[in-house]
This record gives sequence, C-alpha cells and structure tokens, in this order.
Amino acid sequence: MSTDQASERPESSERLVHVPLGERAYDILIGDGLIGRAGGEISTRIKGRKAAIITDENVGALYHGALMDSLEADGFEAVSLTLPAGEKTKSFEHLTKVCDVLLEARIERNDVVIALGGGVIGDLTGFAAGIVRRGVRFVQIPTSLLSQVDSSVGGKTGINARQGKNLVGIFNQPDLVLADTAVLNTLSEREFRAGYAEVAKYGLIDKPEFFDWLERNWREVFAGGAARTQAIALSCQAKADVVVADEREHGRRALLNLGHTFGHALEAATGYDSRRLVHGEGVAIGMVLAHDFSARLNLASPDDAKRVEHHLKEVGLPTRIAEIPGDMPPAEELMKAIAQDKKVKGGQLTFILTRGIGQSFVADDVPSSEVLSFLQDNLPG
Amino acid sequence: MSTDQASERPESSERLVHVPLGERAYDILIGDGLIGRAGGEISTRIKGRKAAIITDENVGALYHGALMDSLEADGFEAVSLTLPAGEKTKSFEHLTKVCDVLLEARIERNDVVIALGGGVIGDLTGFAAGIVRRGVRFVQIPTSLLSQVDSSVGGKTGINARQGKNLVGIFNQPDLVLADTAVLNTLSEREFRAGYAEVAKYGLIDKPEFFDWLERNWREVFAGGAARTQAIALSCQAKADVVVADEREHGRRALLNLGHTFGHALEAATGYDSRRLVHGEGVAIGMVLAHDFSARLNLASPDDAKRVEHHLKEVGLPTRIAEIPGDMPPAEELMKAIAQDKKVKGGQLTFILTRGIGQSFVADDVPSSEVLSFLQDNLPG
Repeated sequence: MSTDQASERPESSERLVHVPLGERAYDILIGDGLIGRAGGEISTRIKGRKAAIITDENVGALYHGALMDSLEADGFEAVSLTLPAGEKTKSFEHLTKVCDVLLEARIERNDVVIALGGGVIGDLTGFAAGIVRRGVRFVQIPTSLLSQVDSSVGGKTGINARQGKNLVGIFNQPDLVLADTAVLNTLSEREFRAGYAEVAKYGLIDKPEFFDWLERNWREVFAGGAARTQAIALSCQAKADVVVADEREHGRRALLNLGHTFGHALEAATGYDSRRLVHGEGVAIGMVLAHDFSARLNLASPDDAKRVEHHLKEVGLPTRIAEIPGDMPPAEELMKAIAQDKKVKGGQLTFILTRGIGQSFVADDVPSSEVLSFLQDNLPG
Repeated sequence: MSTDQASERPESSERLVHVPLGERAYDILIGDGLIGRAGGEISTRIKGRKAAIITDENVGALYHGALMDSLEADGFEAVSLTLPAGEKTKSFEHLTKVCDVLLEARIERNDVVIALGGGVIGDLTGFAAGIVRRGVRFVQIPTSLLSQVDSSVGGKTGINARQGKNLVGIFNQPDLVLADTAVLNTLSEREFRAGYAEVAKYGLIDKPEFFDWLERNWREVFAGGAARTQAIALSCQAKADVVVADEREHGRRALLNLGHTFGHALEAATGYDSRRLVHGEGVAIGMVLAHDFSARLNLASPDDAKRVEHHLKEVGLPTRIAEIPGDMPPAEELMKAIAQDKKVKGGQLTFILTRGIGQSFVADDVPSSEVLSFLQDNLPG
C-alpha cells in the first residue's frame, strides 16, 4: 500500500498512531509484547506513581501477572480488581465497585487507572476513571482485535441500562493506548474474524486502497506479524481521522456505523446470544446488506456489493441473514429494532449508504418502507 | 458601587450574567418570579420538548407545581422525580435512580433535565444529566442563596462516596441557570446568612469594592429587592470570572477556597452535624481565621482581619471556633482533617492567604507547624 500514515517506531515492528485532540491528544502504540513494557511506556507519560489495574477473569488469568511485574519494575504501586467477564459487567453495580476500589487505593488526579481487557472492561474502566475525582489518568490495554481497532479510539465510555446498551457514560479520551498484538494469538478464530469485520469497515467507509490491500494481504493479517500490526495501525488511524473531525458525534462520525444499523437489529433479534451471533458478525452481514441496499437504490454498482461479500466470506465471516443459526423474526420486527436504534422522522431514516467501495455517506432521507421491503427480500424462508 | 458588570435586563429588576465558556457558554438569569416564567426562558434556548424535573421533598412541595405549570404552558411534556432532602441523597443509589427515570422518560440529547433545589439536587442532577446518553441538556433552578451564588457557576457536579464528599463526578456546565430571588424569602434566617458568607467571600477574594458595598448595603441584601438581586448577580459574575480563567481547577480557581480549608476541617470536626455548624458558617469562621493567620504571618494588617470579623459578626454569622456548640477536638485532630483535604508536601501546605481585603492569593509553602500553633491559639479552653 502506498499511504503509510501511521509512523514507524524505532523498534522496527512497532507503530505509533497519534490522535490529535488538542488538550486530549494521546498516542496509540501497536506492537508485539507491549504488556511486558507497559510500566516504562506509562511512566514516561504520567506523573503519578500509583496505578490500579481493572481486568476480567479470563484476561486477568493470562496477562495480569506480566502487567503487574512491569508496573512494579518501573516503580508503580499498583492495586488490582478482577471482574466477571461478559457484557453484564457494564452495570451501575460494577461501576460503583470500581470507583470504590480506586478511591480506597487513593488514586489521585495524576495517578493511573489501567483497563486490561476487551470492550467491556475498557468501557467500564474508562467511565470510572473519568468520574473518580472528576477525572484521573487512564490507560487502555485492549486485548481483543475488536477493542484494539474500535474502542481504543473515540473516547466513548459507559455502561448499560435496563433500557438499552451504552445508555449511560461520558466521552473520556485515554492518556495512552497499548495495543499488544501478541495477545491476539490467544483469541479464538471466530473472535479474531469478528474483529476483522471492523478492520474491513474502515476500508469500506473511505479508504478504498486499504480495502484493496486487505483483499491481497488478509492471510498475513490473520497469521500475525508485520501485516497484522499494519492493519491495526491503519484501522486506528482511520478511526482517529473520523473522530478528530467530529469528536462529539454531531455529523461525520456517524460513518463509523456503516453496517451497524442492520447489524444491531440482527444482534437484538438473537437476544444478544453470542452463540448465535457476535457483534462483528452482525456488522459483517450488515455491511453486505448496506452495499446491497445501496445497489438496489441505484447508488452503487452491484459488483461492489459482490466484492464486499466475496471478501468477507473468504475470511470466514457470515454475510447473509440465513447463516445465523435459529429462527429470525419477521421483517416488521427487525424494522422495530431499527426504529429504536435510529430516529424515524416522517417515515424517513438516517442510514449509512455507499456509492461504492470506500465511498460511504450519511443519508438522512431513507424511506423506511424501502428498508422494510429490502429486509423482506433478504430474510430466509 | 461603580462597577456594574452584570447587565440589566429589560425587566428592570432582573440581571443576566453570561458565563463565556466557548462551546459551553451559558446565561444565569437572576430575578423575582423566574420559576413562573421558566417554560418560556427554557424553550427559547433548548430544542427538545421533553423535560424532567428533579427536586427534593421540601423544595418540591413549595415550587414544583408552579414550575410544572410553566413548562406545560410552553408545550413541554414533563416528568418529575422527588427525592429525600439532605446530603445522603448524593449517592450512587440515587444517581442510578435518576438515570433510570430519565431513560424511562426517553429524555434525548436535546431534551432537558431541570434541577429544582439546593446544592445537593443540583450536584446530583447535573451529574446524571451529563452521563445519560453521554449528555443531555441541563437547567439549574437553585433555591438556596448558597446554591445561587456558588453551585450555579463552575460546572462541578457529583455525588459523595464513603471515602468523602464529592469524590465522584464530572465537570458539566448547565445550559441555563434561573436564580429566582423570590424563593429566598422562604429560607430560614440561618440558611440565608450561611449563603451570605459565600457572597462576602467574593469581595474578600479580589473585589474590595464589592466588600465595601456589602458593608454599607447588607441590610438591603437581607431584606430582598434590588440590592439582593445585585449581590447575587455580582457574586455569580465574580465566580464566573475565576472559573473562566481556570475551568478545570489547575490554578487560580483555588482562590474560591478562601476560608474553606479551615471551614472544611471544622465541618468534619462536627461530624457534618448541621445543628452545630452548616457549610457557610464554617466558611465564615474560616475566612476570619485565614485573615487572622495572614496577619500573624505579617502578610496583612490586623485591621483588615478585624474588619472582616466585624462585618460577618454584624450580619449574625459565627466568626470564632468557640461559637460552635459542643466540644471541639484538639488542634492535632483538626490538622489531620486539613492534611486530608490538602496535600502536604515536605511539611508544607497549599493555603489561600491574603494581603488584605480583596487581595487573596494561593500560597503553596505554608509550614504546617505554623498552622498547628495558630490553631492551638484559636481553640477555646
């Protein structure tokens, strides 16, 4: 690929993506073995010498020891809290618990809270770090591909409420993100693929040359090494470009929802049962549907939709609703979920559509009747 | 007074203070009967037409009906939540409850949450409004003198934790503050006087001409009418000037703590028992002590300290530790409370001291041994 926006670091195989958000600017380091060097990377950027590690049972069992060793070797006095793994941890109850642990450890404004885990731990911990003493330092160590390329950029933190996911939270940019590519070797194939759907998304939004590159190099990305590091760095850079242009999500940032309107509706339809569908799989199907739907509206060529489907299928992702195990509700039910996700104004929806690979745009006048009939044609049986 | 910084409004007796915080700029309206006109003032500034009123049992009984009527007359669809009065309401439990009510009412980003009450309701509601959907519109209707001149400016919101007060929260500027001076007529003398201590504080920080004016006009301020409105407007303006210079409290904003280091220690020593001491009374004694201490360090004239004491005593505020009913702990115990409030570095404390009326400054090199011996000399018995 010609455009290598993410800069190389002295350690040949590492990348650094700078997220230029003024006072809230920060670095994302991407490389092999960063957890073992976390203490040094954090201590050069943060004044305080107290640290708190928030992790979950699964991730903690694998990486907590190495992180603690590195922090202590660099003079940090660290405490830890290990929470249950899973989406239910994003609750008021656990938020209260995290805040209590941070206050009990006397974490002050210049001390650091470290999220060691996937999106759930990152979202919960980032929220707690932003409200304890009205904000203490916050470092993310994302341990899934999805969280490395998605939740490590953008500053969205929060918890779930009984009314829905992510309904309570704040924008809180981290002070540093350490994306250790070595931890991805312990992910299941399915989990890695699900994260890959978000990688491909950045190409489809507005980086056609990145999508080209992924079509040619995805096997190397899955295998690990330099290509994987490069794909993560370019994904972070792509998301950072969008977020910097629209930090508080008033406009352009909506493009990051490419594939997500259909995807969220499918996730809801499966009752968020990860045995049937995980987020990235929903996004993969949703992206194929968004390209198909754009072709049906004569906005894009059907060839582009086929190209997207071919690539996602090639890496092993589901691309059709029929691939989701179990029964699906009728199209009318899916429309209800879409209408809850998006606001319907005068029968019209806001949707991310596309004019082709890497040419997505925000359309705020999509007739919901068109979406409904499209869904009817795409449901199996 | 010569410097009338707060602009007059068309309605002769009203004042408007603009707080120029860029994207977060907002207006404070101060005047008689604003609750009855709240719907109109809010609807010209906020797009949404859903509203949620958060209040407490005492304030709600007096003003909820008038506020609801005004909102409905201006086309708002409003829900209400009435919480127990008192400091204990600033808890995670009540925060969860407020968020639940806002989400259940489907309050969206452009809809409005209204805090109708004193500092407790304002702090809790402002926090909830800042985290539901990562921020919805927020209007404060402060109903005590203290909250009108203090918590309505500055954007500090939050709740208490078992480790201490206000330890969890965010900076969240309101979209509008309506300070209805008519509600102050229902405050007890003691509560009004306690709020007045913060009014006097603004003169003592850096507005000597305002302190002069208060010495001459305090009876009119207590009686109500134009002088009271003027005193509130100038207090809001004075605080706004400090906050605008230092929104996130990195430097100059510390001046707002004049009298508060001693005051907080005295409040803690009474176990926050409001029958013995309320916040404003602690601040009054604290301000006299801060001026005395500055004189003892040869920074200010003892005459200035006497003038401060004379004025606060004249309005009926306590000015000496001996006036607090019940036993006080020894000076060493008070020092511990001060050391918890402030950081002690190498035996030195950061303290707000003064060179005279309206000439306060941040001193970061006050020997704690000096503070201890000063306290020993000021404790009764």
